[in-house]
Amino acid sequence: MKYNVVIDCLGSDKGPEAIIEGAIKSLNKFEGLSVTLAGPKDLIVSKMNEANISSDRYLVLDAAETITNYENPTVGIMSKPNASLVQAFKEAGKDEYIGVISAGNSGAILMGGLRFLSTPERTRPCMGAVLPNAKGGFTMLVDTGASVDVGSSELVSFARLGTKFMRNLYKIDSPRVGILSNGAEKGKGNHLVKETYPLLEEAEDINFVGNIEGNMSLAGECDVLVCDGFAGNQVLKNSEGMAKLLITEIVKYSKMNNKPELMEVVGYLMSKYDFSSLGGGILLGVRKPILKCRGNSDSAAIVATVQMLINFAEGASVYSK
Amino acid sequence: MKYNVVIDCLGSDKGPEAIIEGAIKSLNKFEGLSVTLAGPKDLIVSKMNEANISSDRYLVLDAAETITNYENPTVGIMSKPNASLVQAFKEAGKDEYIGVISAGNSGAILMGGLRFLSTPERTRPCMGAVLPNAKGGFTMLVDTGASVDVGSSELVSFARLGTKFMRNLYKIDSPRVGILSNGAEKGKGNHLVKETYPLLEEAEDINFVGNIEGNMSLAGECDVLVCDGFAGNQVLKNSEGMAKLLITEIVKYSKMNNKPELMEVVGYLMSKYDFSSLGGGILLGVRKPILKCRGNSDSAAIVATVQMLINFAEGASVYSK
Repeated sequence: MKYNVVIDCLGSDKGPEAIIEGAIKSLNKFEGLSVTLAGPKDLIVSKMNEANISSDRYLVLDAAETITNYENPTVGIMSKPNASLVQAFKEAGKDEYIGVISAGNSGAILMGGLRFLSTPERTRPCMGAVLPNAKGGFTMLVDTGASVDVGSSELVSFARLGTKFMRNLYKIDSPRVGILSNGAEKGKGNHLVKETYPLLEEAEDINFVGNIEGNMSLAGECDVLVCDGFAGNQVLKNSEGMAKLLITEIVKYSKMNNKPELMEVVGYLMSKYDFSSLGGGILLGVRKPILKCRGNSDSAAIVATVQMLINFAEGASVYSK
Repeated sequence: MKYNVVIDCLGSDKGPEAIIEGAIKSLNKFEGLSVTLAGPKDLIVSKMNEANISSDRYLVLDAAETITNYENPTVGIMSKPNASLVQAFKEAGKDEYIGVISAGNSGAILMGGLRFLSTPERTRPCMGAVLPNAKGGFTMLVDTGASVDVGSSELVSFARLGTKFMRNLYKIDSPRVGILSNGAEKGKGNHLVKETYPLLEEAEDINFVGNIEGNMSLAGECDVLVCDGFAGNQVLKNSEGMAKLLITEIVKYSKMNNKPELMEVVGYLMSKYDFSSLGGGILLGVRKPILKCRGNSDSAAIVATVQMLINFAEGASVYSK
């Protein structure tokens, strides 16, 4: 199979080199892959030549500008036509591409998605993350940080987008939707949760299972966990931080007590809970897959993200109607 | 030393038995301790007799009612004078007590604290939790769920209460205060964070270090981490959930691969990251220590909480001016 993917080369904390390196590793790994890279042309071409990548496997959209974490994403998208993210998202609209990858900031990806890859209905997109849960399955968390100030109607829409994703991609007939709250009981929650709860209950196309407390967020009690992007960002990043903290503790303990045999469990946990290799977030509610890599992505994360795009293209597409 | 403590016996998911059992274990552990127990008198007296606790070491405030998780806390406090929490908090106002313990819900503890143990200034109290951080120290998280809908002036007040606590109890001269956000950069955040940020910057009595991202919440970059109670509840409970998830994974891995030697690291991690034994939350901004035990507290958690109250009484009190 042939797959054509657009990659935004700017936006990573580790510089364009890490992303270009990831693109090269992906080209070496996936035979049918071609990439279009938006970023500094000279650097890209020289890296590709160094790696002996044939010029018929890649295109370059020359772009040196970037939308930083310090600027308003909407303004950035509108005022910087030469930003790599804008170039990448515009190009990704063409039929030949299966999707686009960017390590840019969530807000810019959201606004870029809305501007260049929006659905005919112009649904507000949301950023999701598929996380491993305690029951051995996966829970999709929406939103993870693209929309930090939202109302109840957006949360209901996020619930629908997550439901569609888990149904199409994970083949779950009727995905269970929970809302993140500060207690399991009905009636617990901040204003937003209390306002959203009855709307989710009433929606006939949503299999609502009620409030989910933070300690149960990855317990596997729901397939889709809905929340505003601020709270979702805490769940996502706190889970990552805690996993790292505990894994580091085991490494320290192993060294201090001279027990190298403990390191095998570190390998096991890393393979399952290394969030940086999970391939980042997925923008839902757009015409084709937009995948966000973490700001600190290395080349391996890029390869994992390309793999995810190929999985999407091979599976039933959640993005088709 | 003599210590007199009030304990609310209702409100635990495990029933009053678990809390009474905790009180008995505490009396056996701490020689100078006396307790006043608010709860069902017959049950308390029979348990005390069974355990051969001398009647001069405890008092009973007979109370069978409880403020449930399903009712409005303010209404509950006002309309149920015989609720165990109300009885306990009223009694705790007397000079002879060093503090009060309850496993009731955060909202009811907040409102009860405000009604019966408020400071002359009637500051809005907040619920804090002292969590172990990656640098081997502790970070106080405020608010952890008592105030889920707050404004920027409350967050600034929470920052001050946390600062005072860490200065007095942990002897940190100038505690570093961070605000929980969805990105480290200034300018990241939801409306509330963006509004609070400049106020914290301007406050001369607060050593503000800026935004803290979720994955860094327990990295030790700040001594006080301020957030609204909804987000804070996610950090607290997600940290707990993730710690449990990873520890359970190690246990499973150890069993499946027949490697009992891995269990020693489980013991180590449990001793450090078993949040249920951390003794719950601390209500700040009241006249004397109000400690919240988790709803699922067992007797060991009660003993840990009594220990915490004694530590407070022995140390410089954060509650004195």
